[in-house]
Amino acid sequence: MTVIEQMGARAKAAARVLAGAGAQKNKALLSIAKALRENCEKILKANDIDIENGKNAGLTASLLDRLKLTEERVEGIAEGVEQVAALKDPIGDVLSGNKLENGLEIRRIRVPLGVIGIIFEARPNVTADAAALCLKAGNAVILRGGKEAINSNKAIAEIMREAVEKTGLPKDSIQLIEDTTRASSTELMGLSDYLDVLIPRGGAGLIKAVVENAKVPVIETGVGNCHVYVDEYADIDMAANIIFNAKTSRPSVCNAIETILVHSKTAEKALPVIKARLDEKNVELRGCPKTAEILGDCVKPATEEDYYKEFLDYILAVKVVDSFEEAVDHIAKYSSGHSECIVTENYTRACEFLNQVDAAAVYVNASTRFTDGGQFGLGAEIGISTQKLHARGPMGLNELTSSKFVIMGNGQIR
Amino acid sequence: MTVIEQMGARAKAAARVLAGAGAQKNKALLSIAKALRENCEKILKANDIDIENGKNAGLTASLLDRLKLTEERVEGIAEGVEQVAALKDPIGDVLSGNKLENGLEIRRIRVPLGVIGIIFEARPNVTADAAALCLKAGNAVILRGGKEAINSNKAIAEIMREAVEKTGLPKDSIQLIEDTTRASSTELMGLSDYLDVLIPRGGAGLIKAVVENAKVPVIETGVGNCHVYVDEYADIDMAANIIFNAKTSRPSVCNAIETILVHSKTAEKALPVIKARLDEKNVELRGCPKTAEILGDCVKPATEEDYYKEFLDYILAVKVVDSFEEAVDHIAKYSSGHSECIVTENYTRACEFLNQVDAAAVYVNASTRFTDGGQFGLGAEIGISTQKLHARGPMGLNELTSSKFVIMGNGQIR
Repeated sequence: MTVIEQMGARAKAAARVLAGAGAQKNKALLSIAKALRENCEKILKANDIDIENGKNAGLTASLLDRLKLTEERVEGIAEGVEQVAALKDPIGDVLSGNKLENGLEIRRIRVPLGVIGIIFEARPNVTADAAALCLKAGNAVILRGGKEAINSNKAIAEIMREAVEKTGLPKDSIQLIEDTTRASSTELMGLSDYLDVLIPRGGAGLIKAVVENAKVPVIETGVGNCHVYVDEYADIDMAANIIFNAKTSRPSVCNAIETILVHSKTAEKALPVIKARLDEKNVELRGCPKTAEILGDCVKPATEEDYYKEFLDYILAVKVVDSFEEAVDHIAKYSSGHSECIVTENYTRACEFLNQVDAAAVYVNASTRFTDGGQFGLGAEIGISTQKLHARGPMGLNELTSSKFVIMGNGQIR
Repeated sequence: MTVIEQMGARAKAAARVLAGAGAQKNKALLSIAKALRENCEKILKANDIDIENGKNAGLTASLLDRLKLTEERVEGIAEGVEQVAALKDPIGDVLSGNKLENGLEIRRIRVPLGVIGIIFEARPNVTADAAALCLKAGNAVILRGGKEAINSNKAIAEIMREAVEKTGLPKDSIQLIEDTTRASSTELMGLSDYLDVLIPRGGAGLIKAVVENAKVPVIETGVGNCHVYVDEYADIDMAANIIFNAKTSRPSVCNAIETILVHSKTAEKALPVIKARLDEKNVELRGCPKTAEILGDCVKPATEEDYYKEFLDYILAVKVVDSFEEAVDHIAKYSSGHSECIVTENYTRACEFLNQVDAAAVYVNASTRFTDGGQFGLGAEIGISTQKLHARGPMGLNELTSSKFVIMGNGQIR
């Protein structure tokens, strides 16, 4: 057995204990939060090494900022774990049930998934967030973080493991793969004897690699090529407001928009208003010829590739469309199926957009930035699924569970 | 674009139409049923060629029987399609909903998965069954059947496509891959730009190949290494009755049992009673040394491998266990997570078994043969999932759907 196979076997054993753990899981979570606070200094010291290494490796300022932990951020992580402890335990919920004519009583019960693998990049807070959610839903977790955060991750994982063990649950409920070479993530993707699901959290490259190479079931997360369509019946100020918010409030996240589509009947009026708002943040516009005609030379020409791109930056592609259908077709072709919005005051257009657009979240007259577990009231979020199987959209605790049929009889045969 | 990529693109276009099709789907299903009846002779002629080829290729009698269509079987297929038409349409169901403090109204709505690929083996009835279920749930389907049934499948698929087109829905709602070489199934497994899910239906070899090689999300179906555990508190006659039913009523199916575990405190009494029942069908027993001690020379020694095996035959592995825990551990190690049963009159044992055993269906005092969509009241079944993601256990129409969040606002920004 390889090191990672051994981790898989230990995780599977831990998962059997966790499946029946009940209230003990909350004790473990509170113990983790306490231990994270008490060991803050240790975590920050480990983080210092990562930051130092990151600087030497020439990481960008924004990547270093993601990597950086402070006393406040560690406190934030600990509070996050406590919030997970406060959520209702979903395990054991009866999802449906009936009694057959032959007397068999059937119930479908919510159970943990089992062993969850999570592959993530430079954010060390994911180590604690993801582990807490998995634990709360009764799952053992194997974490494989990026090499940039390895020292921080090791410190956090070790603190969590000890805290869990103190409360009597197996410390192997949470494990971290310390080998950050490509070989370890490849092996994790193939660990089908032990893993029930693998969740990649990170950029498009990581997610693509996992989806293509994994032999275990994967939940695809987080790539967001999102659109706002400004219908001919849109309230133009509302449209400008929503576009400004959806593009500029946090351009680096997956629920930010990348392209706007503007109906040709309103484009001449709407585009200058929209541009004026976006100028406040110096957003670069890449537009179709009609956009350039209306807005002038400030618009760079949009390439076919631009419409596929998740800029994650102060860049917005613009296209003038001649009909509602053209807008819906454009979205069907280029969207990643994350979040899509129509701005309109027309009832039928609103209904048709909601029905025809195929995405995890479809909006009328609201910013796509709301696609988030916290905003939707799910309590916490392990990621945003952009696939259709198992989970779609923000994933909370319920999405970290499976179900089983429980059948009680008194001798029935078929 | 390859032939199969072109099929994928056409399926995706058809899926967009089907997603909004409503009652038209039922018209298409009834049109299919009618066309199957009217073209029965054509189907049987095509089937004759498959049977002839099968005989020449030396197929076993049981495989030839699976392949064989008769007037009655075609009538059964047509009736099956009508039964699917009569089921409630799950699309558009509101799964949950709430209103946020900021006024956003959120609903989670059931939507089709999109494009479903199905890889299956020698049964031509699957062509119609699977296509009908996919269509009813608003999905386009790409079928890839086994080469043994290719002539029957082509006839059935062509009849269905024409019948669908007559009702105004796209004929590419249903497509059959006519190339039955390994290359075509490999390509289908990698068709991630077009397929939302791939469902293999067939033997363990096919399913393993799909799970290991697919780059699209897969729902694993149907491998059943199922157990009955006869507890020390079991009613012995009930145990013998359940074991006889679960082993011999249809040994070739996935919900039949392969191993029984008998508590040592009841083994001496129970095993002879169980054996007497199984002797009626000449079931071969492969047992542990204790089993042989009790039952004598008729018991062949069970190898480690036997406990992993899905015999799908009149063969049963037997193991005497010294405790409840040993039984549960054995199941955790060898089970495929399909259907597991305890026979006991002890309340606590029953509860613990239901809680601790991790399988799609867990029974107290009833035959595992009930694990079936029809028996569970799901109306129809596309297969039995043995994975934990998305669907677990018998899969009906709901399991062929996804969901999306629909959010209605009046200008909200974050």
